Amino acid sequence: MPEFLTLLPPDEARALLLAHLSTPEPASETVDVIASLGRVTAEDLIAPHPLPEFPRSTVDGFAVRARDTFGASESLPAYLNLIGEVPMGDTPAFEVGAGQCAILHTGGMLPPGADAVVMLEYTQSARTGEMEIQRAAAEGENVIRVGEDVAAETVVIPKGRVMRPAEVGGLMALGIVCLRVVTKPKVGLISTGDEVIEPSQSPRPGQVRDVNSYTLSALVERAGGEPIRYGIFGDQLEALKDAARKALSECELVIITAGSSASTRDMTAEVIGALGAPGVLVHGINTRPGKPTILGVCGGKAVIGLPGNPVSALVNGYLFVVPVIEKLLGATPRPQATVLARLTVNLPSQAGREDWWPVKLIESRKSKVENRQSSIVNYEAEPIFGKSNLIFTLANADGLLRIPPDATGLSAGEMVEVVLV
Amino acid sequence: MPEFLTLLPPDEARALLLAHLSTPEPASETVDVIASLGRVTAEDLIAPHPLPEFPRSTVDGFAVRARDTFGASESLPAYLNLIGEVPMGDTPAFEVGAGQCAILHTGGMLPPGADAVVMLEYTQSARTGEMEIQRAAAEGENVIRVGEDVAAETVVIPKGRVMRPAEVGGLMALGIVCLRVVTKPKVGLISTGDEVIEPSQSPRPGQVRDVNSYTLSALVERAGGEPIRYGIFGDQLEALKDAARKALSECELVIITAGSSASTRDMTAEVIGALGAPGVLVHGINTRPGKPTILGVCGGKAVIGLPGNPVSALVNGYLFVVPVIEKLLGATPRPQATVLARLTVNLPSQAGREDWWPVKLIESRKSKVENRQSSIVNYEAEPIFGKSNLIFTLANADGLLRIPPDATGLSAGEMVEVVLV
Repeated sequence: MPEFLTLLPPDEARALLLAHLSTPEPASETVDVIASLGRVTAEDLIAPHPLPEFPRSTVDGFAVRARDTFGASESLPAYLNLIGEVPMGDTPAFEVGAGQCAILHTGGMLPPGADAVVMLEYTQSARTGEMEIQRAAAEGENVIRVGEDVAAETVVIPKGRVMRPAEVGGLMALGIVCLRVVTKPKVGLISTGDEVIEPSQSPRPGQVRDVNSYTLSALVERAGGEPIRYGIFGDQLEALKDAARKALSECELVIITAGSSASTRDMTAEVIGALGAPGVLVHGINTRPGKPTILGVCGGKAVIGLPGNPVSALVNGYLFVVPVIEKLLGATPRPQATVLARLTVNLPSQAGREDWWPVKLIESRKSKVENRQSSIVNYEAEPIFGKSNLIFTLANADGLLRIPPDATGLSAGEMVEVVLV
Repeated sequence: MPEFLTLLPPDEARALLLAHLSTPEPASETVDVIASLGRVTAEDLIAPHPLPEFPRSTVDGFAVRARDTFGASESLPAYLNLIGEVPMGDTPAFEVGAGQCAILHTGGMLPPGADAVVMLEYTQSARTGEMEIQRAAAEGENVIRVGEDVAAETVVIPKGRVMRPAEVGGLMALGIVCLRVVTKPKVGLISTGDEVIEPSQSPRPGQVRDVNSYTLSALVERAGGEPIRYGIFGDQLEALKDAARKALSECELVIITAGSSASTRDMTAEVIGALGAPGVLVHGINTRPGKPTILGVCGGKAVIGLPGNPVSALVNGYLFVVPVIEKLLGATPRPQATVLARLTVNLPSQAGREDWWPVKLIESRKSKVENRQSSIVNYEAEPIFGKSNLIFTLANADGLLRIPPDATGLSAGEMVEVVLV
């Protein structure tokens, strides 16, 4: 069965889904900068003043006029009159004139008249009120100019940036203590399946607890969305349609995880079709796990049908749910960090299909690989074999290993990139 | 000046610090599993029952006795009496006897008597009440055994594991809806410097706003700690000692960021010395930025003195604060994910010193590098040059690039690993 002729590869499927989303300006809210870690900026942040606001010394030493030190050396020092000490956190009360110098600490304000700082190490007390300068200073040497960090009125953090510790600190330096961030997109989660019950309940024989609502809730939360669980629905098509309609009206993205029976799997496509145009865009993706994944858009909002198997649902959550949330957040994409590792076994794959394998990373030995700067620690990537129904194959994995569609497998000993999950 | 003879390399300095920490059993608290994302488990989690609890089908098809299908093929099918359909989420009311089969959906319970499932694709209706089986099934084929995911009484998630979506789902599958996690270690943050003011205040000429308390708060939060800010202290040694003593009694780790003047820099070491034995362990580290970093342990708790320059403070926070928090959490270390990139320029470095450069990652072109499975996207690493006083050099960086102590620099065109920050 040449399924790869009818099933879309994941990259194409994802592009098709994202292209059909309507992306209105996302809602935003004001938060304190100290509470903004991980949030996405909803506005360009502009420096209200230059940073620094005054010329500062980068060293401990003496503020001078550079021209007074020209030609100075250890054997032929310049002699300057010491006129005072610049107080930390305050404006110097004096001006440094020709032939004069003043004590200046790291971070202190360069006094008027001075244009350079000579490091303490290159000076010596000559006699009371006089310093011996043993090295010439160029104009601007050891000084941070006004606006050298940022100029006034410039965009210091653009819209769409994820807030990290450095961004938090940068805004604080400018006195910006609150900002507008994108409101977390609401993601509705619906489970289906006559056999599925709430985790807090005790299953009768034949029943299983709902796993997917919770793995996906966690995934949504980590991606910057707000998960809302709408509960579990059996083989009741109308009740499921009502729940999906409600979720679609309240959320920016709806995920329906299929029960494992054929009847509930088929229901998802029918529900998506009934929710609005264009409806189902992709029915089946050429990937393992996750072939039965359904991608739809209804009234500009994504509705994703994920397989009921916990591993398939979570892996396809990484492939399709996370990118939709990132698009809803308007976040500038950041590079994907991976771990380089040596594959321990041959991994076969069907040409045309993209495979994602859960792998364990095992520290192999201390040494260097690939280049001089690279990892001190080497890793081996050991695939975890198991059916995609087994959630603990993923709980025991450190990451996921991709076999691209154009490969027919990977060989033992090959260096591979593993995405941490 | 052969400073590298007296300054410790960062790896050694870190090892020394961690070796001196007393690591009592960390405090723990009970949380809901759905609220446990990113927390560290404080107990081994044990499966109360096997998973699955009943043998389940992995396909849609027919439950059979394997021996009844032996030798069956398309040209020579086996004929079995259809005795019923296994209801989803319930126990079948019948037993599959010799020469019999039953409809079974994916995820449904294998009925008593049956030991394999034949996929729907390999069957055909013969006449009413009879199925044609066109392929032999081995015993256990298309069946998940009881306990195949996890066996009862086994440790499914060990103590010290960071909770991720898969762990959340795994516990839900077992009906474990709350668990004990390690209480976030409290990290006290103290800023010093006569020139430093609160971010909400307007600086007079010569004053600067506190950046380090906030970048480090964010860093601590992201590493899984609970930051507590104790405020800003000028050149008042006794007040600083009192604050540090209070912080040390209330927190598991204390960080003092130096003001930039020599006097406040020296104060930190004096304060650490006064807080308890052994006091200062490392005074100065052979790294750039961050040479003036001070590492101490007082009464088993780490007290870290970081330079006042925002870039130095944050980079050294990554190098020393994060590992202490990880040790306090008792978290099993996970591999460090990085981005492989091609360096755009030569970067000189002093032999013996470890350098950390802020770099921007620029998507260069779509193609493959290094190996068949590797990144679809290639990156170039472009160092951001700027003094370590400039917080926006870090806010504009995607990551940090390490030049190890034994290198005298890196060359343009070299492949390097960049740690995302």
